[in-house]
Amino acid sequence: MKKIINGVDTVVTDALRGMAAAHPSLRVDLDSRVVYRADAPRRGKVGLVSGGGSGHEPLHSGFVGYGMLDAACPGEVFTSPVPDQMIEASKGTDGGAGVLHIVKNYTGDVLNFEMAAELCADEGVEVASVLVDDDVAVRDSLYTAGRRGTGATLFVEKIAGAAAEAGAPLAEVARIAKEVNERSRSFGIALAPCTVPAAGKPTFELGESEIELGIGIHGEPGRTRAVHREARELVGLAMDAIDEDLPLSGDTLVLVNGMGGTPLMELYIAFAEVSAYLAGKGATAVRSLVGDYVTSLEMQGLSITVCRVDDELVRLWDAPVETPGLRWGR
Amino acid sequence: MKKIINGVDTVVTDALRGMAAAHPSLRVDLDSRVVYRADAPRRGKVGLVSGGGSGHEPLHSGFVGYGMLDAACPGEVFTSPVPDQMIEASKGTDGGAGVLHIVKNYTGDVLNFEMAAELCADEGVEVASVLVDDDVAVRDSLYTAGRRGTGATLFVEKIAGAAAEAGAPLAEVARIAKEVNERSRSFGIALAPCTVPAAGKPTFELGESEIELGIGIHGEPGRTRAVHREARELVGLAMDAIDEDLPLSGDTLVLVNGMGGTPLMELYIAFAEVSAYLAGKGATAVRSLVGDYVTSLEMQGLSITVCRVDDELVRLWDAPVETPGLRWGR
Repeated sequence: MKKIINGVDTVVTDALRGMAAAHPSLRVDLDSRVVYRADAPRRGKVGLVSGGGSGHEPLHSGFVGYGMLDAACPGEVFTSPVPDQMIEASKGTDGGAGVLHIVKNYTGDVLNFEMAAELCADEGVEVASVLVDDDVAVRDSLYTAGRRGTGATLFVEKIAGAAAEAGAPLAEVARIAKEVNERSRSFGIALAPCTVPAAGKPTFELGESEIELGIGIHGEPGRTRAVHREARELVGLAMDAIDEDLPLSGDTLVLVNGMGGTPLMELYIAFAEVSAYLAGKGATAVRSLVGDYVTSLEMQGLSITVCRVDDELVRLWDAPVETPGLRWGR
Repeated sequence: MKKIINGVDTVVTDALRGMAAAHPSLRVDLDSRVVYRADAPRRGKVGLVSGGGSGHEPLHSGFVGYGMLDAACPGEVFTSPVPDQMIEASKGTDGGAGVLHIVKNYTGDVLNFEMAAELCADEGVEVASVLVDDDVAVRDSLYTAGRRGTGATLFVEKIAGAAAEAGAPLAEVARIAKEVNERSRSFGIALAPCTVPAAGKPTFELGESEIELGIGIHGEPGRTRAVHREARELVGLAMDAIDEDLPLSGDTLVLVNGMGGTPLMELYIAFAEVSAYLAGKGATAVRSLVGDYVTSLEMQGLSITVCRVDDELVRLWDAPVETPGLRWGR
């Protein structure tokens, strides 16, 4: 295993030290393992807290900042953070308007965020939660009851973040977050696995011309193994799965997401096919992102996330954001 | 070879179709293979043109936009673009104030840009050129006489782009571009190779615990093979090589660049070590980028680029930029 690490035990801490050094806009609490906006808590603003296993960067820590998250709780690689982190993050971002927990649907994350929410309530911090479960590939998985949460998490964090930044109250921010999730669907395809540092060997194996359709972000199995094929067909398989679940039409927000080890030019090739597919359904990608946003270490492959947006969601998407992983101008 | 492509012959065209679909801020001429700012040429503004082999995305096409390049010429994968592309790009971005060619030091790129500059002059387009040769790893290489051009290209494009956007004349934009190059040094380390689609096999091979110190962005050999080691030592080797060539002190701009297949968390781990190394030299990273900017398809590894900046260069670095690959607020 060749990785740029100092040791398997210090991976998360060392990466957080790097984030702290690179981004003065963040305040990184290494002891509590919470990444905050430097100016948190903001008085009167709903706090947005998310978190999950590390190894999916820039998700979530890279999405902390103006117009998006107020804090993120990174767990060990591919491992849920603990309730103490979430409680600390919630207290540290509560500006008196309450806190929204954005939770990807993995059993560990869900249980720990639930426990944290209860303990926050005991301490007088009002918490609402939104569960992200956009992955149409499988109903249940190794880590999940129900659908897994994946690329839509970025959409929820950005759009709910814009609403919170604009001063919306907690119930409204939670409503918008839920709406984004309900309007979003994802599907992932893996070409090659990744290696969790502490495990020291690949999370799964694929033959020379084999791919995994419906891969999860931790490398958990998808729908089926298949023979590798050209980009147009790969995208067609992913888009068909999405379209079967949520018929595509009208305006959409699209994420063509690299899993960490996929060349950017391949993601653009995929986006061209997504765009053509949408046109065939009478749909349009009115906004899009192409790149590595919800990764699985160095896994090769991509996921596609489509959100059927209305004017309100586009306006919130367009609102300024300033985070290490996603930024556009104020 | 598992890649998300429709065929090895259409890789660049298909990726450009994707860029065109994803980025309304760009105008992509598929026939001439030039990626323009949608609003080029800008009257009275110096045009900035760069280009090089594809497979290094977001460099260069992803750096086309407000405050950076006016056009980019993508060649085939790891292959120089041709003079016709450069001439077309220069004519299409000349707003009457002349055009700066930003050329990475590879023999093919240099010859073709030189030929293009001569032909542009014949057609009445004033052209200045800056050669980027920041890589301290080797003196000459398979593709290069003299030092190779690598991560500093991004610094040159951003900082000269800001000067051009602010209305500086051609000679001044060229002076600043050259100054950025002279103040910058890079060193790269590969952990695993990449595969050029048309070749179908890895550009080189490394043993299970072997790394290449001083790797080039096309996988060309560096200084030596070595045994893999922890992040602190890897960074130390790279930084020592840089510091031997340009002693580090004072304010610096740092790029910790992923080569395409390196997890972002490993780049942050490296940045923490870069930051500590600089502190030991009495230097500081006053600005930094951590991520995939000058890639080599799915190669695993990183490169580190350091530019010794003064206040003027920091001010130009901070100026607004809006490109697909690099953006911050106006």
